[in-house]
Amino acid sequence: QDVTAGKTKAGVCAACHGAEGVSVIPDYPNLAGQKVKYLESSIKAYRDGQRKHAVMSPMASGLSDADILDLAAYFAALPANK
Amino acid sequence: QDVTAGKTKAGVCAACHGAEGVSVIPDYPNLAGQKVKYLESSIKAYRDGQRKHAVMSPMASGLSDADILDLAAYFAALPANK
Repeated sequence: QDVTAGKTKAGVCAACHGAEGVSVIPDYPNLAGQKVKYLESSIKAYRDGQRKHAVMSPMASGLSDADILDLAAYFAALPANK
Repeated sequence: QDVTAGKTKAGVCAACHGAEGVSVIPDYPNLAGQKVKYLESSIKAYRDGQRKHAVMSPMASGLSDADILDLAAYFAALPANK
């Protein structure tokens, strides 16, 4: 897991989940400070079809396991303070 | 949504999600400071079968809409600091 690589890959996430991982949309979760393992399993669940969402399913569909670990490490490392 | 009622109903949640909504288990998400709407839709998704989890599905199965709103309000109001 590479936080710096995750930050680069996370650019597109900010539109919904906020520039610092605190969501700007009430329906969408904050990611900052979340557990890295939970973030990893959630993104994989969207990619692999156990979870379905109109935005997240296509977003996750092109991600490798390494991409997902980098993204999870990046968001987990952000401060959770609102 | 009633934060105090939510706190009472949240007793059983603490075993996995922590006494203050910060999970003690890496696989399970922190709930403290999460968006109330996201918490509500997540618990409903477990209750109604769109999301499945060995623990959360049975936990959510007996909850009313009002229970879920109270729980969501309680966890959203907890400080997100790790």
